[in-house]
Amino acid sequence: MGRIITLTTDFGLADPYVAVMKGVILSISPQATVVDVTHEVAPQRIVQAVYLTGCAWPHFPPGSIHLAVVDPGVGTERRAIIVEGPRALYVGPDNGVLSAALPEEARSMARGEGPAAVPLPQGYRAFLIAEPRFLRQPVSDTFHGRDVFAPAAAHLSLGVPPAEFGEAVGSLLALPPIRAGRRADGALVGHVVHVDRFGNLVTDVRVEDLPGGRLRVEIAGRTVEGLARTYADAEGLVAMMGSSGYLEVAEPGGSAAASLGAGVGEAVVVRAAG
Amino acid sequence: MGRIITLTTDFGLADPYVAVMKGVILSISPQATVVDVTHEVAPQRIVQAVYLTGCAWPHFPPGSIHLAVVDPGVGTERRAIIVEGPRALYVGPDNGVLSAALPEEARSMARGEGPAAVPLPQGYRAFLIAEPRFLRQPVSDTFHGRDVFAPAAAHLSLGVPPAEFGEAVGSLLALPPIRAGRRADGALVGHVVHVDRFGNLVTDVRVEDLPGGRLRVEIAGRTVEGLARTYADAEGLVAMMGSSGYLEVAEPGGSAAASLGAGVGEAVVVRAAG
Amino acid sequence: MGRIITLTTDFGLADPYVAVMKGVILSISPQATVVDVTHEVAPQRIVQAVYLTGCAWPHFPPGSIHLAVVDPGVGTERRAIIVEGPRALYVGPDNGVLSAALPEEARSMARGEGPAAVPLPQGYRAFLIAEPRFLRQPVSDTFHGRDVFAPAAAHLSLGVPPAEFGEAVGSLLALPPIRAGRRADGALVGHVVHVDRFGNLVTDVRVEDLPGGRLRVEIAGRTVEGLARTYADAEGLVAMMGSSGYLEVAEPGGSAAASLGAGVGEAVVVRAAG
Repeated sequence: MGRIITLTTDFGLADPYVAVMKGVILSISPQATVVDVTHEVAPQRIVQAVYLTGCAWPHFPPGSIHLAVVDPGVGTERRAIIVEGPRALYVGPDNGVLSAALPEEARSMARGEGPAAVPLPQGYRAFLIAEPRFLRQPVSDTFHGRDVFAPAAAHLSLGVPPAEFGEAVGSLLALPPIRAGRRADGALVGHVVHVDRFGNLVTDVRVEDLPGGRLRVEIAGRTVEGLARTYADAEGLVAMMGSSGYLEVAEPGGSAAASLGAGVGEAVVVRAAG
Repeated sequence: MGRIITLTTDFGLADPYVAVMKGVILSISPQATVVDVTHEVAPQRIVQAVYLTGCAWPHFPPGSIHLAVVDPGVGTERRAIIVEGPRALYVGPDNGVLSAALPEEARSMARGEGPAAVPLPQGYRAFLIAEPRFLRQPVSDTFHGRDVFAPAAAHLSLGVPPAEFGEAVGSLLALPPIRAGRRADGALVGHVVHVDRFGNLVTDVRVEDLPGGRLRVEIAGRTVEGLARTYADAEGLVAMMGSSGYLEVAEPGGSAAASLGAGVGEAVVVRAAG
Repeated sequence: MGRIITLTTDFGLADPYVAVMKGVILSISPQATVVDVTHEVAPQRIVQAVYLTGCAWPHFPPGSIHLAVVDPGVGTERRAIIVEGPRALYVGPDNGVLSAALPEEARSMARGEGPAAVPLPQGYRAFLIAEPRFLRQPVSDTFHGRDVFAPAAAHLSLGVPPAEFGEAVGSLLALPPIRAGRRADGALVGHVVHVDRFGNLVTDVRVEDLPGGRLRVEIAGRTVEGLARTYADAEGLVAMMGSSGYLEVAEPGGSAAASLGAGVGEAVVVRAAG
């Protein structure tokens, strides 16, 4: 069995784009094991792709190749990049979508709304994807998933060293870490970053940042106290530590998103109760 | 090629959960062939998962491992189980979702609405999944798909005997068979158990239970007579023997579900006509 | 790694049908690599399946087997067919869905709305799927994907020659090429053939048919001038050459389909501007 290549895109499953990428990969690297992370990223929503790949990639075997194609700037001057980290390779456009490749400290240099250039931390290298023999020719202006990223991932899976694809680059566009800030009064102030199929609201409040003692969570005009351990622990709205280490607001047997009318971006405030 | 592991969940394809499970499986068992049955089970709808896995698993090679994770009680005392049957292995929570592993006679001891404990029939064994070295540590309270069931399936695919995962159990929570009852007057009285993408209403009336002669099917205030052999045989509503051996009500070129305003749970009565 | 079998159906991913086909394939041919093109073809929309498989199959390795099951006439006299072309094998019902197997010249003999019989061009052969030992017995009247096409694809992947499945046939039902016509005044007159997840309207106007000079595109009461090279090139509605060689009308950052209220079948006229 060859190396694993995971795919995260905003292409959906009703168009031919994902199958085309898989055909290109398997034509170059017939032994590759291709695994979908998801293709349901909202169109061009880079931050969502970063959250989803960040949840998924650490569970794959070392040396896996993680391809992320959410690429509103396809065909423009934005760079195509391979990131080589200690545990995996990452392939995609240099528009922030590769942020999940970097550790949080490195990403914390990016502040503000959009992605910002951050230097590569120790143990990481990155290279342009430029070498024509590793691209599908002719390279289109609209589908680099097919012409640039899928071929690069496939050649990487065959053992081509990242440095052969193009010149080394020293910085990467990255989004800030997914991590709620702390107010002067100690409260954590964050946002909903994902709503899952169960209507659970996944926030950017990390478990290791929580205050000691009983919690009070404010969201969408409601207050939830305490922390449920399981979905069966309580009725109505509950706060829970989700499986990826972020605080979630859930409604077991129902949908917190529907009950609160809340979605991605909704503000959340967490503090010690009373 | 390694053994086949099939996945049936209510996780959908837009969240990272399915990819995380695949990463865990392939990290332990790189040669495994992972096949999706479906991830579109309605959230926490155990009975639907039983129907879908029951349709699918008999078509896979002997020795395949069938993982079903629909798990509203995750993190509570409900047991995690491996069922070893004559033709396959089944992995999941002991909440009824493994019912499709058992033959109909065994399941017929469960009556009423919810799942009930039934003894394992001859030729079947079941074991707890408890042995820490086969779990992903630390085991969370919210995602046993990742921490318990995916690792168990992966280790099974490597040839670890089911008995090494924990102590043997003698009974399993099971749902009753999917099979319409018979009234004193001989009529079959059942329900719609699934609506497929074509709007076909799949009932729990089995072909071998049908009366001889011409059929009369009553559903949602309408009566359909006779049995069409193919979707092209008739216009309007027709009754047909579906591909899994259940009576279906279909509207070729249209949607019986839409025309009848009927869905899962709709009552159906079948008798000999005239 | 065994041969690749791609799947295109209108079965969706919420029903057991796709998994059942994969189980049947892997039971016969455990080494096969099964790749989904899409299962989201609109129910029984043969022309859409032809577009999607036509986009996808050329990117797969030579010798791949492409299965397309959109089959409103299942169980009737319509034939089950294997097409052997210079670069791939194709399996499906003879109802037009295999059109993408044939070159455009061959398909151009089909005119009008529905599929028409066209002779096989040089280099192509086709055979009935009839030999009982290659079918799943008993063959149902409602699910030839499981009983006829999946087993045929699996046996082909094991190296069974197409001629062993049944008698040779000399013609195939085919849809006309996806290619806009030309009016007496030189304008190209076509239609939208696909709307992708980004709301891009893919037309049947091929790049090689475009007039020289600046373009004027009329669609849904609007006129778009010129040709954008990338999605980042312009705001509002733009015309672009899509990645499969067809003219698209797109709205970068938005949805041309939503803005124009246009979908599949919408007329488009393309001519040289003034």
